Amino acid sequence: MKSIQIDRSKRLKEEPHLGHNRWHPDIPPVLEVDQGEEVVLETRDASDGQIKPGMTVDDLGGLDTKVAHPLTGPIYVNGARPGDLLEIEYLDILPQPHGWTRNRPGAGFLRDVFPEPYLVHWQMAHGWAVSPQLPGVRIPDGSFMGTAGLAPSHTQLLAWARREADLVRRGGIAFPPDPQDAVPATEPIASQALRTIPPRENGGNIDAKQLTRGSRLLVPVNVEGALYSVGDGHFAQGDSECCITAIEMGATVSLRFRLLRGEAARHNIRFPRFAHPGYFNPPEWAAPRNFIATVGMPIREDGTQEGEDLTLAARNALLNMIALLQERGWSRQQAYILCSVAVDLRISNVVDLPNVTVSALLPEDIFQG
Amino acid sequence: MKSIQIDRSKRLKEEPHLGHNRWHPDIPPVLEVDQGEEVVLETRDASDGQIKPGMTVDDLGGLDTKVAHPLTGPIYVNGARPGDLLEIEYLDILPQPHGWTRNRPGAGFLRDVFPEPYLVHWQMAHGWAVSPQLPGVRIPDGSFMGTAGLAPSHTQLLAWARREADLVRRGGIAFPPDPQDAVPATEPIASQALRTIPPRENGGNIDAKQLTRGSRLLVPVNVEGALYSVGDGHFAQGDSECCITAIEMGATVSLRFRLLRGEAARHNIRFPRFAHPGYFNPPEWAAPRNFIATVGMPIREDGTQEGEDLTLAARNALLNMIALLQERGWSRQQAYILCSVAVDLRISNVVDLPNVTVSALLPEDIFQG
Amino acid sequence: MKSIQIDRSKRLKEEPHLGHNRWHPDIPPVLEVDQGEEVVLETRDASDGQIKPGMTVDDLGGLDTKVAHPLTGPIYVNGARPGDLLEIEYLDILPQPHGWTRNRPGAGFLRDVFPEPYLVHWQMAHGWAVSPQLPGVRIPDGSFMGTAGLAPSHTQLLAWARREADLVRRGGIAFPPDPQDAVPATEPIASQALRTIPPRENGGNIDAKQLTRGSRLLVPVNVEGALYSVGDGHFAQGDSECCITAIEMGATVSLRFRLLRGEAARHNIRFPRFAHPGYFNPPEWAAPRNFIATVGMPIREDGTQEGEDLTLAARNALLNMIALLQERGWSRQQAYILCSVAVDLRISNVVDLPNVTVSALLPEDIFQG
Amino acid sequence: MKSIQIDRSKRLKEEPHLGHNRWHPDIPPVLEVDQGEEVVLETRDASDGQIKPGMTVDDLGGLDTKVAHPLTGPIYVNGARPGDLLEIEYLDILPQPHGWTRNRPGAGFLRDVFPEPYLVHWQMAHGWAVSPQLPGVRIPDGSFMGTAGLAPSHTQLLAWARREADLVRRGGIAFPPDPQDAVPATEPIASQALRTIPPRENGGNIDAKQLTRGSRLLVPVNVEGALYSVGDGHFAQGDSECCITAIEMGATVSLRFRLLRGEAARHNIRFPRFAHPGYFNPPEWAAPRNFIATVGMPIREDGTQEGEDLTLAARNALLNMIALLQERGWSRQQAYILCSVAVDLRISNVVDLPNVTVSALLPEDIFQG
Repeated sequence: MKSIQIDRSKRLKEEPHLGHNRWHPDIPPVLEVDQGEEVVLETRDASDGQIKPGMTVDDLGGLDTKVAHPLTGPIYVNGARPGDLLEIEYLDILPQPHGWTRNRPGAGFLRDVFPEPYLVHWQMAHGWAVSPQLPGVRIPDGSFMGTAGLAPSHTQLLAWARREADLVRRGGIAFPPDPQDAVPATEPIASQALRTIPPRENGGNIDAKQLTRGSRLLVPVNVEGALYSVGDGHFAQGDSECCITAIEMGATVSLRFRLLRGEAARHNIRFPRFAHPGYFNPPEWAAPRNFIATVGMPIREDGTQEGEDLTLAARNALLNMIALLQERGWSRQQAYILCSVAVDLRISNVVDLPNVTVSALLPEDIFQG
Repeated sequence: MKSIQIDRSKRLKEEPHLGHNRWHPDIPPVLEVDQGEEVVLETRDASDGQIKPGMTVDDLGGLDTKVAHPLTGPIYVNGARPGDLLEIEYLDILPQPHGWTRNRPGAGFLRDVFPEPYLVHWQMAHGWAVSPQLPGVRIPDGSFMGTAGLAPSHTQLLAWARREADLVRRGGIAFPPDPQDAVPATEPIASQALRTIPPRENGGNIDAKQLTRGSRLLVPVNVEGALYSVGDGHFAQGDSECCITAIEMGATVSLRFRLLRGEAARHNIRFPRFAHPGYFNPPEWAAPRNFIATVGMPIREDGTQEGEDLTLAARNALLNMIALLQERGWSRQQAYILCSVAVDLRISNVVDLPNVTVSALLPEDIFQG
Repeated sequence: MKSIQIDRSKRLKEEPHLGHNRWHPDIPPVLEVDQGEEVVLETRDASDGQIKPGMTVDDLGGLDTKVAHPLTGPIYVNGARPGDLLEIEYLDILPQPHGWTRNRPGAGFLRDVFPEPYLVHWQMAHGWAVSPQLPGVRIPDGSFMGTAGLAPSHTQLLAWARREADLVRRGGIAFPPDPQDAVPATEPIASQALRTIPPRENGGNIDAKQLTRGSRLLVPVNVEGALYSVGDGHFAQGDSECCITAIEMGATVSLRFRLLRGEAARHNIRFPRFAHPGYFNPPEWAAPRNFIATVGMPIREDGTQEGEDLTLAARNALLNMIALLQERGWSRQQAYILCSVAVDLRISNVVDLPNVTVSALLPEDIFQG
Repeated sequence: MKSIQIDRSKRLKEEPHLGHNRWHPDIPPVLEVDQGEEVVLETRDASDGQIKPGMTVDDLGGLDTKVAHPLTGPIYVNGARPGDLLEIEYLDILPQPHGWTRNRPGAGFLRDVFPEPYLVHWQMAHGWAVSPQLPGVRIPDGSFMGTAGLAPSHTQLLAWARREADLVRRGGIAFPPDPQDAVPATEPIASQALRTIPPRENGGNIDAKQLTRGSRLLVPVNVEGALYSVGDGHFAQGDSECCITAIEMGATVSLRFRLLRGEAARHNIRFPRFAHPGYFNPPEWAAPRNFIATVGMPIREDGTQEGEDLTLAARNALLNMIALLQERGWSRQQAYILCSVAVDLRISNVVDLPNVTVSALLPEDIFQG
């Protein structure tokens, strides 16, 4: 069984051959695998191990600030080519025993209302997280990977950097490429590569809590070998992740890949999708039984990037779901009606600026007439 | 057992003593009940019975257009006073056998993409809805009342009409008072009363699909006797109701009231809440087990009405949930963290302009530490 | 829609053209239906309406004692022939508002421990049963038909009467034919017909609580037209029905028939089976999701009737399940292993003497490898 | 954290200081713990590691035959005294990757029908078991400990050996003490100690599949320190375990103890009970939500041992449940009624001779009136 094992006593920058924290097509793969192989990957938490048990808000001042998100990978999937849709099936997601949640001044959905820092620690064991700061609360295991995606192409790299810079010029919030804390630190990658804060067409920091064990993430392939990377494990999260962090943790994730040859090109699928078959496993709290979902981000049809706009994200999630239903043979109008009577719009994240994300969940069990 | 029975062969305007389709404090009560009494109310569908089995889009042209939503009531709840919080427990919601869903040109979330009319009929029996226009689809019973609320006070009536008029002046979409098709048709009520399209602080057209059998809706009381009215039954709906209609139906609803004396005043609760205890009943498809929810609409702290803004609605749902958690003794910061790790933001409706609504659902089972 | 409507103010003997309370092939059909037609049947409770709200144990003395179970029917299913397997799909089961549970001296599993009479009344509304005699208890709706079956052939009639008489001779408990309270009262039927207390190969009083809305009962056809009859509605029951009564009620049941032509003959299926597809509907309390079941009764391979022997009933349920798995292509040994690791043996009833019944439930979702 | 770690490459007899395979009060404890402490125990499979991947039925001939069940322990619980009830909460149960199921000639419920040996291997990973011998089948993780119990007192040791010997004299099947393969091999323990095949008042091989993660087992304490031992992990099993083995596996179990001081004496609780609170965790396939259970075995009130008699086991499970309900304040008659309408009798095992076991499950959620 192929695997990537990390040394949790080290920072990512001390093991740059096993991971990265920026998106760029020229980061070389760490591992090469075939479709169907089980792969086991160890991942770091979003703080790159800087937030440790016992720390207080006073200790947060000296941390490196641009380390998010340390990702393990990339994985080269043999045979993957642009135009394919890559399915990643999450076989298992195992938490590390320590987790944390913080409010970071200047970030989060209610940053004007909560300008002060705050830090909560969690202990995870036997399927539950408990926190001394939140007595009487117990959160069940709904582990999922907050960030997982494929390398962008060079063309996408440029286009996405440009649209986000344009948003900043119009007064919006986005995070331009920045070599500070970048891994790899080598140029020109460090200065060109995209930050991992927002999710984009290549997946990334989608933060959809339904991506628990058993789920399948589908992402359009942009480069040869797909170059999948993953990190930012969350033990649990509400739909929206409002204070910008979930129960953040290191994790060990088992997964396998399946290539849907040419599927993204054939149907012009430009954004990720995800699904959960249900069966017996998922805690109902984490994910409903047997659905498929599309996502939407605040990016206009013409490519213009908007910032923190849930209405536009909802619109795009819905348009993508209508396209999915049309692929299955329903007419546009039938699809729209089905969305109105059966598809749920959930706010996956409202914090990963500028690309706040809305997911549209279709329950598959309605098709049993 | 007290009840209001309607004649389904008649239009609301032919039985104006049993219901109304505008919000106004001077509409006289139809029934007077005590706390705890079971009350059975028959309700009309959103088209006021105009859309009948067998009709096609060509038949929709001649319909009265401003009849929504025919409500049954008001009910005078003995002892209810401004400052109280009124809990409505839905004991049962029974569908009529015919339902419909339509796309109405110029309305709906994707009105630019779907400018043409479309109409689907449903037959409901034995807990499922099926439609000849959607072969192979079967939607399980998740019946809830789309519109249910309390009379506004005179002060609210004026303030809300004013803020919506202001939005229209700024180019937004809202629906000012309009005597066309109004019930009651008597003046000055017909020309003053608020349209029922948007939900507001008094509840109304919230369209939260989780308000199924067993759920409890909590609304601040604004006038003596509370004056509760209800209608617009939905057999099923996705979170968002994107094409502006759900599976629309007439219904028979059984409910009872409970007064939480002074609770709204004590905690400054200005918007509705709702909860579902779970137990055995709700289809998982319809509602998660055992939660409490707050709602948010795009209305600023200073009272300014914004239009179709999910980001602002999400913000308000979240602020209201934080307030709810503070009422239970959690600090602001603890509450914010709990929201990030456990509260789900769902888009209840994205169509009831201007007040698109986001609900924040807190799973109660996390409090079992 | 075809239906049989009864007058609930009357006893069965006053409407003998609509039902019966003994099994006999010569009872003429009340209704004739085709496969696939929806049929609505009103049924009496097990006491034939003799136990009314407000009665106490003191009132039970004067009741007719051999009225169980008043059944509605028979229904003649066009085309049904011996050797077919008849599937009955329960579309809906609606309770009457009053229910009762009694301990009857001399009957019930613990009859030596509980020799005294006892009577509890229930009120059913909105999906729950509550009882003034059991304060604080609330039982959710798990309505099913306790007794449902097909007419035996003349050969079966004789054989079954004989094996039960033989058991009585050996000191066991069984209930021979008895014209007292029989409907029809006409001879020779009244004196020949089988009592309905025990379930048998033709179904009857199986009392499997999983036969809720959405379930399917499969029974071998013995006579032309199958001659299906039903009654003895239970609002809820534990697996075993230990005190000999459940929450007994009148009911309205909607169902439809499907003929599996020659299936019973082809596979030598001699006892009933049942299944529940699951989907969204059944309360988890009532039935697990998506299973198929076989039943077993204490009857030896050579036809000898034993009494009140759960071990033999369990053995037969298991042998029948192994046969079912073999029909699907599994080897005997594979089938036995599958039973050991995945099939649940539940005690459906321990009181319907002599044929206490064990059901073997196979979860269909294991076949998704 | 206290733990007992075993060497899985060794047989139990090679590590006799860490476990045993017979019940006897004089086996010295391996570990001493306090109430509330988390304890982690590694356990061997029922074959004591003799059945390995790749073996066939032909390899089974040479195995040691009286090794069942290798148990890890005993654990001395500080403060436990006879008359107490000891609660064991199962925090986690982790499977080893290999499992097996066998039919053993002469054993199993259908031993006359299946006289030939048969062996199936399972691979367990990511929450599922699959087997090359059962293609297309996938069994979800429902891991529980088949055998777990407390040391008997010397008095019990003698009485139980005597009643089982008496059964053998009457022609029944039981397994008298036998030093062959016994661990400890030291005398007089090896020749006096009870075999672990049947469950008894001290728990042991109950094989109730609902004892999954999160469940609580309650057993009367017979000796100072309680002396708890555990083994015989099952990845999954049907209610009944008909072919005498489940998916047998080694396991790692985390648990903690709680003492209910004097509770067994106070209420004359002589047999184990178990409960599962439900919450989010248990797969519905494995255990219903939130129940408490009593068990029954075929032992008469006067202490006479009967063999393989499910009817008597069902009777005792029911009598024990009625006693439990009486402890909560219900009258005998109320309790009997509650059992009839809400308590499920399930056949936990039909193979652990002579003590086949029926469990009576009471759903706690009915007490919410």
